[in-house]
Formats: sequence, structure tokens, C-alpha cells
Amino acid sequence: MTSQSNTPLYSKLVDHMRTEPSSYHVPGHKNGEVFPLLGKSLFHDLLKIDATEITDLDDLHAPEGVIKEAQDLAKELYKVEQTFFLVNGSTAGNLASIMSVCKDGEQILVQRDSHKSILNALKLTGAHPLFLTPEIDSQTGLSLGITEDDIKHAIENYPNVKAIVLTNPSYYGVSNNLCSIIKHAHAKGIPVIVDEAHGAHFILNGFPMSSVSLGADIVIQSAHKTLPAMTMGSYLHVQGDLIDKEELSYFLSILQSSSPSYPIMASLDLARFYLFSLLGKEDYILHSLKKFREEIACIDGITVLNPDYVNISHDPLKLSISLDGLSGYDLQALLEQRGIYCELANEKSVLLILPLKTNFYDEKLIHNLKEIAVQQVSQCREQAVSSFFLHNFRKNVHPLDVTYQEGKILKRRRVHIDEAKGKVTARNIIPYPPGIPLFMEGEKLGEDGISYLKKLINENVHIQGIQKPENVIEIFVREDEEV
Amino acid sequence: MTSQSNTPLYSKLVDHMRTEPSSYHVPGHKNGEVFPLLGKSLFHDLLKIDATEITDLDDLHAPEGVIKEAQDLAKELYKVEQTFFLVNGSTAGNLASIMSVCKDGEQILVQRDSHKSILNALKLTGAHPLFLTPEIDSQTGLSLGITEDDIKHAIENYPNVKAIVLTNPSYYGVSNNLCSIIKHAHAKGIPVIVDEAHGAHFILNGFPMSSVSLGADIVIQSAHKTLPAMTMGSYLHVQGDLIDKEELSYFLSILQSSSPSYPIMASLDLARFYLFSLLGKEDYILHSLKKFREEIACIDGITVLNPDYVNISHDPLKLSISLDGLSGYDLQALLEQRGIYCELANEKSVLLILPLKTNFYDEKLIHNLKEIAVQQVSQCREQAVSSFFLHNFRKNVHPLDVTYQEGKILKRRRVHIDEAKGKVTARNIIPYPPGIPLFMEGEKLGEDGISYLKKLINENVHIQGIQKPENVIEIFVREDEEV
Repeated sequence: MTSQSNTPLYSKLVDHMRTEPSSYHVPGHKNGEVFPLLGKSLFHDLLKIDATEITDLDDLHAPEGVIKEAQDLAKELYKVEQTFFLVNGSTAGNLASIMSVCKDGEQILVQRDSHKSILNALKLTGAHPLFLTPEIDSQTGLSLGITEDDIKHAIENYPNVKAIVLTNPSYYGVSNNLCSIIKHAHAKGIPVIVDEAHGAHFILNGFPMSSVSLGADIVIQSAHKTLPAMTMGSYLHVQGDLIDKEELSYFLSILQSSSPSYPIMASLDLARFYLFSLLGKEDYILHSLKKFREEIACIDGITVLNPDYVNISHDPLKLSISLDGLSGYDLQALLEQRGIYCELANEKSVLLILPLKTNFYDEKLIHNLKEIAVQQVSQCREQAVSSFFLHNFRKNVHPLDVTYQEGKILKRRRVHIDEAKGKVTARNIIPYPPGIPLFMEGEKLGEDGISYLKKLINENVHIQGIQKPENVIEIFVREDEEV
Repeated sequence: MTSQSNTPLYSKLVDHMRTEPSSYHVPGHKNGEVFPLLGKSLFHDLLKIDATEITDLDDLHAPEGVIKEAQDLAKELYKVEQTFFLVNGSTAGNLASIMSVCKDGEQILVQRDSHKSILNALKLTGAHPLFLTPEIDSQTGLSLGITEDDIKHAIENYPNVKAIVLTNPSYYGVSNNLCSIIKHAHAKGIPVIVDEAHGAHFILNGFPMSSVSLGADIVIQSAHKTLPAMTMGSYLHVQGDLIDKEELSYFLSILQSSSPSYPIMASLDLARFYLFSLLGKEDYILHSLKKFREEIACIDGITVLNPDYVNISHDPLKLSISLDGLSGYDLQALLEQRGIYCELANEKSVLLILPLKTNFYDEKLIHNLKEIAVQQVSQCREQAVSSFFLHNFRKNVHPLDVTYQEGKILKRRRVHIDEAKGKVTARNIIPYPPGIPLFMEGEKLGEDGISYLKKLINENVHIQGIQKPENVIEIFVREDEEV
């Protein structure tokens, strides 16, 4: 058995490169030799391993060599039955997972604050989603996920659902323990799919529990988000008998390029190796993160969000900070002027994703936060806390206002956002990041929701699904209806 | 207007990198700083621009900044209405194109020797494919594409088809002039989608005509195959009024990662710049390719395939060579022993893809071919020419033996390839490369086809859809049927 300290795929690519092979195959850059001078310095090294399915380099879509070995090492590290490397991001994993468990017209339970790729999968399959509304902390606006009671209640009302699709942790690193939810679902023979995009590092001690350890049937992780993998590199883990692994593998092969990127796959091999190398060093990681967090919390005017709820844990890599008198958008702008880029901002705070390493410390961030804090106390553009879901909160479980099927017999119309109140949106409207639809195709546009949306627009938040600068959106109308 | 000598996306990434920004966002490698030492030397430079959708770096799924600028430069160079950058290969472009033109149960005309991604799109949409059988040259086994008469005949018989899906050029660089076919389809109001995966460079003078110039409605090109783009980087061009561009854009956003790779997108910007820089230098390119081809043709025992048919042209970047007394598989193995890797081999010959540059020459290949030719004349394992389609040739246009819809009410069974004769396959069976299904889900397995398949297996050709080493395949059987 290959050891975790090996990197079979990456090493094979390096071996191949070292023989200085002549490339008479795709890609057209020929191991980096044919490339515009302008870009050579940055691209040259990596293009040497931007290879294709030649002898000994295996095939992601029918792995039996080094790619299989690399996937098996990931499988063993995460202690699951099978791990797939994904080169089209967790998007491909979310799509394939849902396509493999439910078909046209079948019911599926879905956490409402899911990533758009999950909602897109529902559209592609024609499944009938039943949305689970997350608990929201009115103090912070944070989504606390779905409660066990809500799941039980939903399963009682909809016993024929094909699967439960949850997101854990949240974008802000809030992770509720899914143990009992998964047990309950399995008792009813229902598979649980978890979008763990932000939790690829959760198998480390001292971090929230990974759903792979809790027995979730399919777990999708964006290795590129918290591990050192290239963007678009993800893992999909599968275990148990409730999933047809062949169907899953079939849909993955359909939804990902037939010429998958070897640099991305190699980075997944290296990211697994990196995660393995951190085992046993968790105390150093957690200590340095804690120290850094505390030092920032000591800065006058700065508040560090420390989520503290029953049965909920928080990813120490996620750091939410707010500064008295400033909106998160303002703070983000001030940090960017100083060359510091955050993950996202909201009305109240900015979200920073800290690096996963044993000895993290960053004098530059501390120094700049102190300067900003001193200079900005005068200003006052602080905003009331808000949330994606406070705006159109609906209890427990609910279907769409208009199903995709009905959608087919409706016309699409473009209207200005001010005329959209009470209408049903015909496109997902998605602030990005985080990529969670504020409104989904088929949902009614409530008054609160629209005013919340306009607030985001005024803050120049980037929003997918709105035609700017006119602020026009698409709605469904009946064939006979005029707007 | 930005000039073709600019690279807006790549340059913006370099500008951002030069400011040495602090990354508190995804990806987890933090501009390459957090990465296993083992892989640093190869990955470090490019990871500096493996960024995400932060301020000023735009968003592929709602472009309004540097990504839009880069796509517009490609649009202007190819003289089309709109160009999309693809990060999930031409696979994503083929899927989205077909999803945008036809829905469940609708008819569509499809060239039978299409790439698997096109056939997968039919499965996902539930469309009813009507397959056009290509002309095959019995001498060389080359597919010569679909004739104008076959298209006319097909449209007469199936006037309600939603689109015609063609592949041009073929994997071997054979390109038939689609001008009259496109004109005829447009006269009937039918859009033409062309998988031009191997023709991203065809807008250069002296190469076969690109279907973008012939007015095809959607053209998908693998920039990574013949231009210097990273693997998974492709272009999708769209023009005319027969395509709903918003639907197309919507499906592209569904089928591609919500965190698209900036290095891949930047390489598409650079590849467009590289192609532009070759305009006017075509004579040098063509001259060096011709000279090289002729020098190889002069080697004793070597034959260079020079396709020469009416109304058909050939991509000079594609070089098919055979050596008397050897099969293509043998020649491929001998070349690999000498560090020379071809695109693919068949019974008769090997296919080489030459680099697109003004001054190409490679002493190493010539020298090694001469040595091999001298040493191998003794041997004799030459094989009769064959083809994907000679084996189960069916004239003109035909539907599947079992449609996907019927497939749903059938059981899948695993049988050994020797027991599959006359059965209907339940999986695509795909020699890779080139990735063109030999049998498609829903097709009957004829005797000739099976013996051809076994020949490939004996030559250790890599085949997707077969369980090895048992050589078991999946077939459809009726609920009551036993095997």
C-alpha cells in the first residue's frame, strides 16, 4: 500500500517531465515550449506538467493507475469508501450528487441557504425541492443550519424524499453537529448529502467534526478553499449503501471536462499530502490562530465575532471582524486600499479566511487594523445587522411558489426592481460571494426582500441575475398577463 | 477600444500580483505562500495569479470588467457576436449548447462520430437524437464528415429537428466545407452547432475554413488543443438570431465551476493574443510544416497520410504516419521508448499534432524515425486498415435502437463481451483518445462491432465503459428477460 507521505500523481508527472519528452499531442503549448513570451515567466514551470492522458498518466474518467492511487490515498486519509478528485469545483460534485439520487418529479429536502450549484442541480433534474429554513441568529444574522426537530418534522410530512441536502459549515464557519440528523435520516433509509465546501480540513483535531466522520453518504469539499489546492480542485467522498456509486461516477464523468487539468489533479494530490503532514501538529495551528484572533480583539473599536451556541462549533480559520462606526463594506474598502483583501463584507463586518499552517502570524494586518481603527472612530456609517434570511423568513419546510414545471408554461418578462414586488422571479438572484441565492427562480419577491436587495445594490455588492446599471430583473408572468 | 495586442485579464492579474497583496480569501494556498515544499518549485509562480473574484478581477459568470474585455477581444478576432471563455473544456460548451436548443422529447440531428460530451448532452436533455452517419474513406478509414445530400435528406424526413450538431474538423484534421450545409439549414430556420474542438487556429490564412466564418450559429473550440492555452481552456462563439444567447449563457453558468480558474482564463487571453500575433505570418508556418512533412515522407518505409478529396481540406498541424511492417500501436510504443509521445495510434498509423509556430523543425523526431525505420523493416505486424464506422456502417440517418426513455423501464445487466452479441449496450463504450463512442447507450452490439472492440482490447487501447480485466460490459434487458 502506498504511504500517505507519497504523492503518486504529482511524482509521476515530475518523472515524466524530467525525461524532457517530445510532445506531439495536446495541449498546444507543448509542455510550455509554445507560449507567448509575455506570459512565459509565470506559466512556464507549471505548463511542464499540464499534460494529457498519455501512457502511464492514467485517465480521471476511468482511473486504474496513478490517479487511482492518489484518490485512494485521499480515501484512506478521510476514512471513506471512495474519494473522487474533482477538476470542475464542488459545483460538479453538487450537480452529480443530486442527479444520482433523484429524478424528474421526485421530492428532495434542501437547506434553503445552499450554494447556487445545488439549486441548479434541482433545476436540471426537475426534482421538486422542499426547502428547510435555517435558524438565524438575530444578533449576528448568522445561519445556524437546520435543527434536528425541523428535519424530523420535514421527514414526517414528506416521507418519500429521495435525499436530504445540507450545507455544513456555513460560509462563516458555523458548523452544527449533524450526528443525530444523519442517524435519523439513515433510520428512515434516506441518504444525506453534505456540501462541506469550507471544511476540507475538518478531519484535523480541534476543528469542527467533518460529516465524513459522522457517516454522511456524500460529502463534497472544496480542497481549494482551505487546503493548498488550485482553484477548481475539490474532493467528493462517498460511503454507505444508500448511494449508487456507479451512477454518481457516471454523472461526474459527464459534468467534467474530458481533458481534465493535470496541474489541478496534482494539486489535489499535494493538498492531501499537506493535510496529512499537519496531523499531530494541530495544537500549534490552533494556538497561533487563537493568539492572532485575541490580539486583533484587543484593538480599540474592533470586535471579533466569536459564535457561541449550544451544539454548534466554529472554524478557527474564519475570522469575522467589525469596527465601531463603520459598515463592513467600508472596512473592506479601507483594507483593500492597504493591499489587504478579505473574502467578503456585509453590513456589519468583513470575513477573513486565515491560512492553514502551524506558525501563522501577520504583523501587517494587525498594524493596518490599528491605524484604521484610530483614524475612523470619527466616521459613523454603522448599519443594523441583517441577513439573507431575516428578510423573508419562513418557518420549517416549504416548496417553491412556482415549480420549474409550471415555469415552463409561463412567459419571462423584464421589469425594474421597483415593479417586481409580489412577482415571481424567473432567475436566481445571487449576491457573489457567497453565491447563495437571495431569491431563487420560482420564489415570490417580498417587500422586505426587495428592500434588502436594493440595499446590497446601493453598497455595490456584486449580484448575479440582475441587469445593471438599469437594475432590471426577470420575472414569470402568465401567458395572458401583462405587466 | 482595447487593441488585440493587449491582454486585459492577464495584465490585470500581473498588476495585482505585483502589489504583493495579502490574501485573506480563497484559495487556501494564499497566492502560493501556503504550499507543500515538495511542489513549490513547479507551482509557485503560477499560484501568484490563481486568484478569485475579488475587487477588479471581475466574475466569469457575470462579466463586466477585465474578463468581459478579454472575451470581447476574442469576439473581435474571430469576428463573431459573442465569445465565452470556458474553464471546463469544450465539454461544458457542447453540453450547454445542446441544452439551450432542445428539450426533453425534441428531435435533433447529430453526426454519429461526435465526441462523447455531445452524446452525454442528448442524455441529459432527453432529446431524441437522429444520427447522421459520416462518409468513410475505405482506403484510410478516415471519417469525411456528413455530405450535403445526407443533410438535405435528413431535414426532409425530420423537418422538426431543433438543431444540427456537426463535428469539424475530425480528430485527424479532415475538414469538409460546411458552407452549403449551413446555408441550407438556415434556409429552413435550423441552427447549426459545430464542435470545432481541433480548429481554434482555423481563422489563420491557409488553414481549413473555420465554421465561425461560414456562419455556424454556435462554434466550440478547444483553445488548449492547438493554441497555447492551459488544458480545460476553450472558446464558445455564438452569432445569429437562431440561438437564445441568454439561455446559452445560463447553462454555461450552471455547468462550470462557480470558482473558475484564473490561470486557465488568463491563458485564454494569452492564447488569443498569440493567435493574433501570427496573423500575416501564415506563410512561414505553412512552409515549415510542409518542409517537415516532406522530409519525413522521404524516409524509407514511412508513409505520410495526405488526405486528398473533393471539397475537403486538411489541417497541416495533423500528421499521420505509418511504417511498413508495423501497426500504429507498435510504432507508438517504439517512439515512446525514445521519449516521443504521439496523440494516438490506430491499426495502421500514429497521429502527431505539430506545434503552431512560425519556425517549426524537430531533428529528434526525424532522426528517431529513421533509426526505427531501418531496424524494423524485418518485422511484420502490419494490420488491415479499419475504422470506428466501417464496422457497423448504417446509411444516412437513423435513431437509437433503444431510446433513453425506454431505457428507464429496462434493467441493466453485466455480461462478458463474448455474450453481448445482439444485445443493447447500457453504457457508452469509448476508446480514449479520441473519445468518440464506438457504441452508445441504446445501440445494438453487432458481431463486426464486437470483434473490432476485442481487437482494440488486445492492443491494450484504453477504453472507457468496459470493466477490465474481466472485459465485462453493461447491457439493457427487459424486466422479464434473463441472460
